Amino acid sequence: MPIGDDCAVVRLGGGKDWVAAADMLVEGRHFEASWASPRDVGFKAVAVNVSDVAAMGGTPRFVLSSGGGAGPETTLGCMEGIFEACEEFGVYPLGGDTTSSPALTVNVAILGELKGPPVLRSGARDGDLLAVTGELGASAAGLLALMSGDVSERRVGRLVRKHLRPEPRVFAGRTAAGLGARAMIDLSDGLASDVRHVSERSGVGCRVDLGLLPIADDVREYVSAMGRDPQVLAATGGEDYELLISAPEAVIEALAAESDVPVTIVGEVVAGDGVVFLRGGEPVGNLSGWDHFREE
Amino acid sequence: MPIGDDCAVVRLGGGKDWVAAADMLVEGRHFEASWASPRDVGFKAVAVNVSDVAAMGGTPRFVLSSGGGAGPETTLGCMEGIFEACEEFGVYPLGGDTTSSPALTVNVAILGELKGPPVLRSGARDGDLLAVTGELGASAAGLLALMSGDVSERRVGRLVRKHLRPEPRVFAGRTAAGLGARAMIDLSDGLASDVRHVSERSGVGCRVDLGLLPIADDVREYVSAMGRDPQVLAATGGEDYELLISAPEAVIEALAAESDVPVTIVGEVVAGDGVVFLRGGEPVGNLSGWDHFREE
Repeated sequence: MPIGDDCAVVRLGGGKDWVAAADMLVEGRHFEASWASPRDVGFKAVAVNVSDVAAMGGTPRFVLSSGGGAGPETTLGCMEGIFEACEEFGVYPLGGDTTSSPALTVNVAILGELKGPPVLRSGARDGDLLAVTGELGASAAGLLALMSGDVSERRVGRLVRKHLRPEPRVFAGRTAAGLGARAMIDLSDGLASDVRHVSERSGVGCRVDLGLLPIADDVREYVSAMGRDPQVLAATGGEDYELLISAPEAVIEALAAESDVPVTIVGEVVAGDGVVFLRGGEPVGNLSGWDHFREE
Repeated sequence: MPIGDDCAVVRLGGGKDWVAAADMLVEGRHFEASWASPRDVGFKAVAVNVSDVAAMGGTPRFVLSSGGGAGPETTLGCMEGIFEACEEFGVYPLGGDTTSSPALTVNVAILGELKGPPVLRSGARDGDLLAVTGELGASAAGLLALMSGDVSERRVGRLVRKHLRPEPRVFAGRTAAGLGARAMIDLSDGLASDVRHVSERSGVGCRVDLGLLPIADDVREYVSAMGRDPQVLAATGGEDYELLISAPEAVIEALAAESDVPVTIVGEVVAGDGVVFLRGGEPVGNLSGWDHFREE
């Protein structure tokens, strides 16, 4: 689709710009019915679209939602999750379509309002710092727990919630835009993929230090106990729905002071091209092997 | 969903009103892969949304499209159909999402522009005439042909095309709105259901004469040969994507003169409530039994 950023930007009258995006979640591809309730799925479909608007520096305003499952209870549960998320994120549900489908499927299309120019993926410049909001890896750790059936353990409750009920960073995104952030993207595919989008679109190189990634203690413990590397998971796991921001140091500092969530410097933008991940000052090779979490 | 009309109406800045809608098509529910190509499905998903905008008197402008099938070829074919329809109907594809799904699923969300007040389902008044654009029953006849595997017969080619590639009535809808049509709805569920929506929302009675329905000769012949009643099929078959318009006689006459498609008076709005279908001056009983074609 000819979109190429988190959202498309469209002028809808009165010289006012809006951002628009859509995301579809499909059972068996994005979630399993064994570990995500229809209500979770509806909630998340709205949240991931809200995150796309946040990544442009916009304010989410309206959604159109379509979908359904094999029976009316599934469809109703999904719609309840959609309404719950609309209320939580202050978005007005304009309507949409309910249908039945062998695999629970939900699509949300969103319109967000811009107060200034949108923050694109293409604006990163040599000398910028790279920062992320919140924390990385918790959602992927939660997915590990869900897939391994560990969810009855109390210690994974927070991780599972991070996966099923992401908290899009609307205030941080709008604040970053207002302060002059140069490029922004939401971390849906995972930092390793998403920083590459910024690098390629901006025509710059990016250096990210794995040692700087904000990883919570419970994520480190759980992921290590599962025999995985927490830093690699945090860089590649995906579905964090945090923001990656490229901006001059002063902007990052101001954002860290104003933001409602932590803002952590994880790297820098350099002349040239390509993305390098460092650990202890040494480049890290192939950060892949986590295809399960990847979106196309 | 809290929509209650063909589209929601939303003010997006500059005092300008827009209409928004979304429709999802799912394999096995809205079509079968044995008779609808992915390209047909993508095309139709845009067309039915364009029809919703037409029914408000709006001009379709932007779509967000999501969907996919079991493999990349299916998904690509569907996207090609979406782009073909966007070009045909003058709509700009803002983007969306591609995914994979066991059952080919496509969702289109649309934004249309209003030049004046929207034409709602609720405006019909005692003394209005009821008119429809184009013809009725051809799409349902085409679906009969597709389901019975008759499609190699040359005589059904036009009917099949009417089912797979509906032609939304954008010009007629906008013209009707400009002339002062009081109520409008697009015929997706079938005239019998859709006229009931107008009756209930407007708080009026509707009388429709089955003998007045515009049914083409090839539809009459094919449907009769299949042992069905063409008038009943035309009233209940659905998916015509024509417009039902309620307006004073002078408006209907002016619309008939200006419209690019035939406009046929099929009945009238009366005081009271309920919908009566007449044949030869006598009320016709239960116009149901065509559930296969019905949408929820």
